[in-house]
Amino acid sequence: MQDIVKIAVDAMGGDNAPTEIVKGTIQAIKKRQDIKVFLVGKEEVIKKELAQYEYPEGQLEIVNAKEVIETAEPPVMAIRRKKDSSIVKAMNLVKSGEADALVSAGSSGAILVGGQVIVGRIKGVERPPLAPLIPTKKGVSLLIDCGANVDARASHLLQFAKMGSVYMENVIGIKNPKVAIVNIGAEEEKGNALVKETFPLLKNSPEINFIGSIEARDIPSGDADVIVCEAFVGNVILKLYEGVGATLIGKIKEGMMSSLRSKIGALLVKPALKETLKSFDASQYGGAPLLGLNGLVVKTHGSSKATEVMNSIIQCVTFKEQNINEKIKQNISLNEE
Amino acid sequence: MQDIVKIAVDAMGGDNAPTEIVKGTIQAIKKRQDIKVFLVGKEEVIKKELAQYEYPEGQLEIVNAKEVIETAEPPVMAIRRKKDSSIVKAMNLVKSGEADALVSAGSSGAILVGGQVIVGRIKGVERPPLAPLIPTKKGVSLLIDCGANVDARASHLLQFAKMGSVYMENVIGIKNPKVAIVNIGAEEEKGNALVKETFPLLKNSPEINFIGSIEARDIPSGDADVIVCEAFVGNVILKLYEGVGATLIGKIKEGMMSSLRSKIGALLVKPALKETLKSFDASQYGGAPLLGLNGLVVKTHGSSKATEVMNSIIQCVTFKEQNINEKIKQNISLNEE
Repeated sequence: MQDIVKIAVDAMGGDNAPTEIVKGTIQAIKKRQDIKVFLVGKEEVIKKELAQYEYPEGQLEIVNAKEVIETAEPPVMAIRRKKDSSIVKAMNLVKSGEADALVSAGSSGAILVGGQVIVGRIKGVERPPLAPLIPTKKGVSLLIDCGANVDARASHLLQFAKMGSVYMENVIGIKNPKVAIVNIGAEEEKGNALVKETFPLLKNSPEINFIGSIEARDIPSGDADVIVCEAFVGNVILKLYEGVGATLIGKIKEGMMSSLRSKIGALLVKPALKETLKSFDASQYGGAPLLGLNGLVVKTHGSSKATEVMNSIIQCVTFKEQNINEKIKQNISLNEE
Repeated sequence: MQDIVKIAVDAMGGDNAPTEIVKGTIQAIKKRQDIKVFLVGKEEVIKKELAQYEYPEGQLEIVNAKEVIETAEPPVMAIRRKKDSSIVKAMNLVKSGEADALVSAGSSGAILVGGQVIVGRIKGVERPPLAPLIPTKKGVSLLIDCGANVDARASHLLQFAKMGSVYMENVIGIKNPKVAIVNIGAEEEKGNALVKETFPLLKNSPEINFIGSIEARDIPSGDADVIVCEAFVGNVILKLYEGVGATLIGKIKEGMMSSLRSKIGALLVKPALKETLKSFDASQYGGAPLLGLNGLVVKTHGSSKATEVMNSIIQCVTFKEQNINEKIKQNISLNEE
């Protein structure tokens, strides 16, 4: 018999909630019979959305949650006070083992705090990093950490490298993934205090395939599979990736519309261009896992549409099937001895 | 009588030295009669390059320097030992007042070290930041600091904001330039320890027009004129800008070549696209000044071609004419009292 993966989905989180979240959920359970989803949020709102669809009802259960944590709320306070919020209730489903995983497009801060406080860390893990996949020339790389735990220590970064390697090898299927640390030059003696302290730890770790420093310029080339950095830097990289991409594509569209000649050309290149740019669109790759927790917590982009929600839900199946947390546990405890 | 601005140009620095450096120098002195260039480097090599051109000879003087500092050399040692290198000799011309400014496409490390050790800081300036202009949707923004002095303090960042404002107002001509600090969220309480400490200093400084935090995603939109950050983060932003841009343009070209239809379209959009992308090309804006020194030191991109060298040389004229260093001196000393 096939194992069923149980996933709690925060129906109220994100810019397009609940419509796109519910739609993505329906797409996911229609696509995969080995998934059961708990849709967590305001029951009457969810029911109204669901009324539009036909779907396998045995694979979906509504869990009522009357409160919603807003993006602007201070996360620690929100998690503590809003016990009946969709995020807190979904987290509790993971904690109790009723759900294997949680997917939310809601407040990053609340998800990061809730993950640590409610779901809890795997023994030995010092900090759970948020690790999105970013598109590159060759495919995808894992950028670890992009969370809200800034000012990390070298020992945290070493753990990020190990957890990221387990993820890339087992979820994405890259054998012996190449690990690099974000730096401002290729030489070992370059960098800030944190990088200089972390570099030898990575170099001497037998569990990872460390290839040295990577300059930001080379990240989009895809030369490293796991890109290790402190969360402030990771956040800057992730968001600049989006920003430069969007601005440049806007500029190109503007250029194409500037003359009759170029407008005709634009019509001809459009289909081919759309296909190429799709491969450089981060939303194709689902959400970012918060690694190192007792259960899987996936943060999807706040502006997620149904496709991204569906991809994030399906991503949880591989994570469960591959026993990622068991592998992280072994990897981290090796280090502890 | 017109004032002549005297500029020392490092003929030996950069990937395309000496050919493109000499070519750019010739273009600059042909364009502007108010410039005199000292071409610093191996005399016989420079003479051979110059033999190809006709130019106003009174505006150019060769200064012989027998050594060259390579990019890979440890900068402190190189500056100390290679007294007869083109960088050290050019720096000494600025120090002695024989030249007002220096332009080099050579080793960043050597330029940063030489700037501080040989040219020296303006009294009161704690750290000279490297501040390149980056292209945005609206024009250009100044990214300050992208140098090699990582792990900055809050007081350094405050000075960067002030010096950057003077530069944008007087050299680029933006009235009351908007200053923002790179952060991982828009709220004041977000950020790492350095940002949290710097934020109130910027907020309470009457000399600058502080608009708050800027997320990396919004940098390419051009909402801030002066973007303040610590050098490690600045370096990541600068290089990722280049990397994402180059990768995306590569992807687009690839997409355009994928079918006969799109190839025909590509021919039609090409001229318009070339024009648009030019406005997003950092090399159009000359080099990055190292601010806060007793003289102007400009670092141009290592891969600079003649046009960028020429722009960097001409940029020095405005800097001198506007008395930027005098204004920085006043601005910083206000702060000291």
